[in-house]
Amino acid sequence: MLDDALLSINQVTTREQWSLRQAIEGYASQGVHGIAVWRDKMHEGGGVKEAARQLEDNAMEVSGFCIGGLMSTSHDAEFQVRLDDNRRVIEEAAAIKARAVVFVAGGLPDGSTDLDRAYGQVLKGLSILLPEAKAAGVTLALEPLHPMIAASRSVLTTLKQANDWCDQLGDGPELGIAVDVYHLWWDPELEKEIARAGKRIAAFHINDWLANTQDLRLDRGMMGDGVIDIPKIRRWVEAAGYTGHREVEIFSERNWWQKTGEEVVRVITERYQTAV
Amino acid sequence: MLDDALLSINQVTTREQWSLRQAIEGYASQGVHGIAVWRDKMHEGGGVKEAARQLEDNAMEVSGFCIGGLMSTSHDAEFQVRLDDNRRVIEEAAAIKARAVVFVAGGLPDGSTDLDRAYGQVLKGLSILLPEAKAAGVTLALEPLHPMIAASRSVLTTLKQANDWCDQLGDGPELGIAVDVYHLWWDPELEKEIARAGKRIAAFHINDWLANTQDLRLDRGMMGDGVIDIPKIRRWVEAAGYTGHREVEIFSERNWWQKTGEEVVRVITERYQTAV
Repeated sequence: MLDDALLSINQVTTREQWSLRQAIEGYASQGVHGIAVWRDKMHEGGGVKEAARQLEDNAMEVSGFCIGGLMSTSHDAEFQVRLDDNRRVIEEAAAIKARAVVFVAGGLPDGSTDLDRAYGQVLKGLSILLPEAKAAGVTLALEPLHPMIAASRSVLTTLKQANDWCDQLGDGPELGIAVDVYHLWWDPELEKEIARAGKRIAAFHINDWLANTQDLRLDRGMMGDGVIDIPKIRRWVEAAGYTGHREVEIFSERNWWQKTGEEVVRVITERYQTAV
Repeated sequence: MLDDALLSINQVTTREQWSLRQAIEGYASQGVHGIAVWRDKMHEGGGVKEAARQLEDNAMEVSGFCIGGLMSTSHDAEFQVRLDDNRRVIEEAAAIKARAVVFVAGGLPDGSTDLDRAYGQVLKGLSILLPEAKAAGVTLALEPLHPMIAASRSVLTTLKQANDWCDQLGDGPELGIAVDVYHLWWDPELEKEIARAGKRIAAFHINDWLANTQDLRLDRGMMGDGVIDIPKIRRWVEAAGYTGHREVEIFSERNWWQKTGEEVVRVITERYQTAV
């Protein structure tokens, strides 16, 4: 039996069905007391104070706050806009006591083919933001995303690269890594790099890769419906020292977003015990 | 100016428009004397002897033969069937004087989540086939494919893994690596692993990653239309010692397969000088 207290649901999993308030109440009503919060849904639902109140009223722990980052631009004015946006993210994450901000690097800027330059901008952004995150008591968790969205979303694509960046930036409680099985399952270096990440692991995201996947972003599967050996990866992550939530994050236009929120949560609580 | 003699076109690029014979004649008529041949098209078009004759008549060099491999199964009978099929591939590749057989590992077997077992089967298959390839004077070129098709097509996903497998199998003229910019461009280890691959590089495939790519297999772009810095990667490959063809390989359901073969070849010859 896995500890039910460590189950969290990323609200994107029910984003088409439920507001933040409905998600908080819907998860809590089935005994799930972990949630990852998306900013757009939080602001639609009354903002950070209202969210903090709802979370507290329902005894919810916040496993993650989505999203920070998108710092790969080389355009000065845009870079400043992104820095300021990340400052608000840090402030809001502190207000809702999020365990981590999910930090997505950003893709290649429009018209660019220069990965090295994009890497440099992300590292420059992090070097400015990390002291501010530290002062706020917030962890920025670098999330390597699947190489298929390197151009559009994240030039950071492997756990090795995330570890290399952490080596370069210097370890501290303000810097972590988010391990998502969907993005990383295929990597022959995964076991080694999870061990190397160790205490850097600040979030662990679960879901599945469907064998007949149809879309580059919105066709993730429920745990147990795909090809990922989730228990194996979970054991690696826990052997590395991670003791936090197992956060279910499923973008699924053709399946799970078509079902009721109640049903999605019910299946998650079942699969948490059979496929994680 | 790049040397026109080193331009090759993989016939999949015009597979919806042209038979093998039409491709050979269509490429040659615009001055392209390199081709990669697909087995299904070769057998549709009269088989290996007929192909060898047409290739010779048109002074075509064969940069690659597609495909060998698909050895990841754990099912004994199926593994034997695949071995036998690869033996025919080796024989046919020798007959048409192909510089390399494109060796695709194979995905996860149906219902399996065991990457390590799949890796083991591919290595076992290679250890049986490599001496036979050597005897036939044929090179099996391991092609790491994009991680987005790890489940369906190739558990071999990075150039590092291909290099590690070559280290394990032992170097010889019968074993090589195919570097395709589409599959590998996103990898922060690419420059290092291309240098490490060195003389193992037996094929170099070019095309582009479209920023707004729509499909996991059939939406590749023409060189210059996407986000890959192809000249940079070409220079790395050539600095590693590769002196062979630059082979254009584009699967494109929504664009290039909709145009005439003549137009596709015309654009390729232009882009070869401006975007490669």
